[in-house]
Amino acid sequence: MFISFEGTEGVGKTTLIRKIHQYFEQQGKEVVLTREPGGTPLAEQIRSLLLAVNHEEQMSHDTELLLIYAARAQHLQQVILPALAAGKIVLSDRFTDASFAYQCSGRGLSQEKLQLLNQTFVAKMPNITFWLDASIELGMTRARERGALDRFEQEKLSFFAKVRAGYETLWQAEPERIKRLDATQNADVVFGEALQYLKEEP
Amino acid sequence: MFISFEGTEGVGKTTLIRKIHQYFEQQGKEVVLTREPGGTPLAEQIRSLLLAVNHEEQMSHDTELLLIYAARAQHLQQVILPALAAGKIVLSDRFTDASFAYQCSGRGLSQEKLQLLNQTFVAKMPNITFWLDASIELGMTRARERGALDRFEQEKLSFFAKVRAGYETLWQAEPERIKRLDATQNADVVFGEALQYLKEEP
Repeated sequence: MFISFEGTEGVGKTTLIRKIHQYFEQQGKEVVLTREPGGTPLAEQIRSLLLAVNHEEQMSHDTELLLIYAARAQHLQQVILPALAAGKIVLSDRFTDASFAYQCSGRGLSQEKLQLLNQTFVAKMPNITFWLDASIELGMTRARERGALDRFEQEKLSFFAKVRAGYETLWQAEPERIKRLDATQNADVVFGEALQYLKEEP
Repeated sequence: MFISFEGTEGVGKTTLIRKIHQYFEQQGKEVVLTREPGGTPLAEQIRSLLLAVNHEEQMSHDTELLLIYAARAQHLQQVILPALAAGKIVLSDRFTDASFAYQCSGRGLSQEKLQLLNQTFVAKMPNITFWLDASIELGMTRARERGALDRFEQEKLSFFAKVRAGYETLWQAEPERIKRLDATQNADVVFGEALQYLKEEP
C-alpha cells in the first residue's frame, strides 16, 4: 500500500505520518517512510537545489517542475517501486498532487504539462492520499516557528491560498483516492479519522 | 542566429566554437558562448549532479533525462532566448540533439519521451547545428588525455558507437539544419567547411 500526505506548510503532516507509522508497525507491518522532493541521496541533492534561496538567479517555473520530476523519477525507481514490490507500506510526505497544487495552481503552470509528465514518468499513484486542510494563516505561523524559511515558505499568503485551492480542486475531482482531513482539529482526532479511512481500504 | 555544436567526446567542438566566435567578433557581432548541460549558475549545478561519478546510487535514465531538461529550461529562459531577442549570436556546445543521441540512442530511452519534452519545454531550436563526426576511438583518446573521466566519459565504447549512430540518424532526418563535418580533418579545414555553411544561411 502506497499512502501520500499532502497539504500546505505547517498543517501537521509529520505528526500524522508518525502516528500512522506507529500504527502499522504495531501490526507487524514493514513501513518505508519517505518524502518528496527527496527520498534518495541524489533526490535530496535535487531537493536542496529546489529549496535554496538564490537572490542572483530566479529559477524558471519549467525548471522547478522538471527538477521535481527528476527527483520523483529517482524516488520511484530507487525507493517506492522496490518497497511496494517487496510488500512494504510506503508513506510519502507529498507526491504528484503537490506538483499540481504548487506548480500549476500556485505558479500558474499549465495542467497539460503536468499531466504529460505524470503519464510519461509516474508509473504508480498512491492508493490513498490524505489532504490535511487548514487555514493558510495557521499553517504559516507554525512553519515560521520552525526557523528560517526556504524558497517555497518565503512565498506570499496569496500563493498558499492558490495552493490550497489547488488541493481542493484535486479532492473534488478524485474523492475516491483523496481524503480531506480537517487539520485544525486535535492531532489525535485527525489520526482517528485517517485510521477510519484506512480501515475502509480494500 | 542560434548555432549548436554536437558530437561525441574529443571531436574538437571547443576548437571549432573558438574559431567561429573569433570570426563573428571580427565582424563586430555580439556573440554569447554557452554550453549544455549548463550555461547558468543553477544549470551548472545541475550539470555537476549529472556528471558526478556516484558508486552508491545509480541515476535512473528518466532522472538523467529530466535533469537535462531542467537545466535546458533554465538555460533557454535565462540565456538563449534573451540573447536572441537582443540580436546576439548564440553558440551552444550541445543542445537537444545530444539528448537524442545520448539518452535515446545511447541509453535506450524512448524517442516519444524526448519528443514530448522537446514539444513542451523547448521553445526555440538552433538555426544550424554542426555535427562533428569522427571515429569513437580517436575522440576517446583525446578525452582521456584531458584528465579524469566524468560519468558519461566512463561509458564503454559500445555506448559511444550508439551515440554516434544517433547523431547519424538525426543528420539524415534533418539535413537542412544539421551539417556533418568530418572531424578527422585538420581543425582549419573543419572551420573552413563550417564557414561555408554559415555563409549559405539566409
